[in-house]
Amino acid sequence: MPTHFEQELDHLKQRLLTMASHAETSVTNAMRSLMERNDELARQVKVDDSILDRFEIEIDELAVNLLAKAPLATDLRLITVAMKISHDLERVGDEATTISRRVLELNLEPQLKPYIDLPHMADLGLGMLREALDTFVRRDTVRARAIIPRDKEVDGLNKQLHRELAGFMVERPSTITRSLNLMVISKSLERVADHATNIAEEVVFLYEGTDIRHSGQNQPVAPA
Amino acid sequence: MPTHFEQELDHLKQRLLTMASHAETSVTNAMRSLMERNDELARQVKVDDSILDRFEIEIDELAVNLLAKAPLATDLRLITVAMKISHDLERVGDEATTISRRVLELNLEPQLKPYIDLPHMADLGLGMLREALDTFVRRDTVRARAIIPRDKEVDGLNKQLHRELAGFMVERPSTITRSLNLMVISKSLERVADHATNIAEEVVFLYEGTDIRHSGQNQPVAPA
Repeated sequence: MPTHFEQELDHLKQRLLTMASHAETSVTNAMRSLMERNDELARQVKVDDSILDRFEIEIDELAVNLLAKAPLATDLRLITVAMKISHDLERVGDEATTISRRVLELNLEPQLKPYIDLPHMADLGLGMLREALDTFVRRDTVRARAIIPRDKEVDGLNKQLHRELAGFMVERPSTITRSLNLMVISKSLERVADHATNIAEEVVFLYEGTDIRHSGQNQPVAPA
Repeated sequence: MPTHFEQELDHLKQRLLTMASHAETSVTNAMRSLMERNDELARQVKVDDSILDRFEIEIDELAVNLLAKAPLATDLRLITVAMKISHDLERVGDEATTISRRVLELNLEPQLKPYIDLPHMADLGLGMLREALDTFVRRDTVRARAIIPRDKEVDGLNKQLHRELAGFMVERPSTITRSLNLMVISKSLERVADHATNIAEEVVFLYEGTDIRHSGQNQPVAPA
């Protein structure tokens, strides 16, 4: 039978997963508001952001209370990692808000071009995010390590789109406002993938005790 | 006589202040490399960033070890706040790196215009950062609260510069690359002020037990 402490720890994890699903929905809705040119949905994303803000505060409180009771060093680590993951998720929500703000500006003008790379970047970033949370739950550091290099693909798409949009701006100055807004959205999606990468690195740190942040050791490791 | 635990806690604080001074130097050097068009200094900022990365890892380790020994709930809070501050400082270093990267690109072309707003933004942001760390050390939540609304001034300067640069781009497409690079630098400086604001909010949370993040309660409070 799980102890009271274990139950509370489990509650913390559950809240974190619920928060993650809200963060994912925010980005999905922000992208839908872009694709569908839907002002109302864009405004809804901004309103929903306060939910993620409250989640971060709640998880911090749960975590600080649990730290006081944690019997083992591994519990301490789990709790501090939970706080970090919640901070990353809150920032994913901020990126969704940034995207939706730019959508409202974009919707004032005709669509500049069909959006192909942006939804692709969103899919990649959200896929990384979902999987990073899953490796946290399943303690799967092999898969967590494999998420990290995928960040490079999103970075590459962001750079490519940036160049393409800079080209539009030079050729047709009338596209400058729209191009700038799309650049910001692209950068926000790139940051969503960064946060997913942070989470994957935290999972490796948590279960392997190896801090791979900033080490450049972000190559996938073959399963043993 | 301070206990062993108190000595270790003090060591953690000292390391955090040393880290803060490195972060400040990074931004200062990045801005000097912009103003002096100094490629070598810009490249140095990138090299120095690894120092901040290592600091973050060191402080996390010190913090997790101390959590296991913390006798009081207030100590737990201090330690978790120290981890958060170190994360903000590491990200300040990332912004310095972003700036210096853009400086290297800017130095390939003649200077677009005299830089007035950017060094002003840097001064404001770094002033906020220094003061936020000082309120952490002195437990001065009145001053910490007073830092928070100053973020709006930096936000305003960023928006104003953004508009000005967008205007350049429309009038003279040959300025697009430089304008984009200056926009990124402006955004990075705005983020430095955001991190200072985060730290000030953490200080209020730490010593008042009030979580003012995301509350919009970021008005200065008159001293009692």
